[in-house]
Amino acid sequence: MKATSEQKAVVLLSGGLDSTTVLAIAQDREYRIFAMSFCYGQRHAFELECAKQIARQAEVNRHIVVDIDLRAFGGSALTDDIEVPKMRSLAEMTDNIPVTYVPARNTIFLSFALAWAETLDARHIFIGVNSLDYSGYPDCRPEYIQAYTQMANLATKAGVEGQHLQIHTPLINLTKAEIIQTGTTLGVDYALTHSCYSPDVQGRHCGQCDACLLRQKGFSQAQITDPTSYAT
Amino acid sequence: MKATSEQKAVVLLSGGLDSTTVLAIAQDREYRIFAMSFCYGQRHAFELECAKQIARQAEVNRHIVVDIDLRAFGGSALTDDIEVPKMRSLAEMTDNIPVTYVPARNTIFLSFALAWAETLDARHIFIGVNSLDYSGYPDCRPEYIQAYTQMANLATKAGVEGQHLQIHTPLINLTKAEIIQTGTTLGVDYALTHSCYSPDVQGRHCGQCDACLLRQKGFSQAQITDPTSYAT
Repeated sequence: MKATSEQKAVVLLSGGLDSTTVLAIAQDREYRIFAMSFCYGQRHAFELECAKQIARQAEVNRHIVVDIDLRAFGGSALTDDIEVPKMRSLAEMTDNIPVTYVPARNTIFLSFALAWAETLDARHIFIGVNSLDYSGYPDCRPEYIQAYTQMANLATKAGVEGQHLQIHTPLINLTKAEIIQTGTTLGVDYALTHSCYSPDVQGRHCGQCDACLLRQKGFSQAQITDPTSYAT
Repeated sequence: MKATSEQKAVVLLSGGLDSTTVLAIAQDREYRIFAMSFCYGQRHAFELECAKQIARQAEVNRHIVVDIDLRAFGGSALTDDIEVPKMRSLAEMTDNIPVTYVPARNTIFLSFALAWAETLDARHIFIGVNSLDYSGYPDCRPEYIQAYTQMANLATKAGVEGQHLQIHTPLINLTKAEIIQTGTTLGVDYALTHSCYSPDVQGRHCGQCDACLLRQKGFSQAQITDPTSYAT
């Protein structure tokens, strides 16, 4: 569904493949885009540089980077010094909640998006969660997003005044291959996006962590050439 | 209900009268206390110093101050340069959502508490919201807390594994006078707490903003001597 030209949307943009596709989808639906990224002590900080470049190239209305320190209380291989697992099979990935899980990350990110949406008088938030390809994260499931929406509409002025907020999750039921196909149709340049949990000093993808393996599989299944620069 | 001695609780501690009372209640219930405060660009930063002193005095297990920048997207007299209203009647205060409302503040704070609780393997969060004395904030109502709890239990490992999280709001139905009576019984030293939205350079309460007026009214109705140092 297309937005009216004045409808604003806050888009959570990590600089990864998924959120960059979501940005393209929100733009295609003609929302005025307010992109939000987080600097949260992630080890793969190259993502943030990608996010900035992607936002610039997409000519979004505004892009902010919010500084938060998830390291203050730790608990994940993405922010701590736990080793990122390599070369796991898909079965191993989906079997358990992965060590790369950041506690309550989407809940924190959505809460900042909610605050910004309220300030902007925006009723739409876009987030690139996906429950199909990688089901290990509890905060990527439709029932979670639904509960979040319900809570958000009780939390805010707009909600209280009957102006309901919507959380859009256009990727939630897509495979990685379908995400890549969708983005490619919309003109996304995936060479700009970053997925790797463990890049080298030049920011090249390791090609071995869960995120790299899923990315490679996605391009291969979509039968689209993978433009990623891998270290190995 | 008393906790078993090993039960951990994350207590949101602003350094104000309400949250300090909540801390005392959680301690009285024998939880192991993990106190969490936020540095969020609030103009009344004296609160934070109070929080640190209160946490020290209460000998909590751990106290962390999380740095977040709500000013990045503005929208409130507590973080922006909008003037804090003075000498309003109770009717004026409760009539509208006040300009001192910080967008989605409790949602953001609870999200950090949730992340820390998950890291600590704690199942209990205490927050000093109150829906009686001051009903202007949508995120202080029981229906909001209930929706938050539901969302939180879908968001996290613990929730998914059936270890349900509880959000305790022991003040939600108390008047300010009852809160002060409760805290006094538990030995809270209210001289250490800070309420004012607009303190002077020495950190003394202005005696005129909504928070000061409610504080004064509370002590007066509780028939307890107000130990607060007022500028006027």
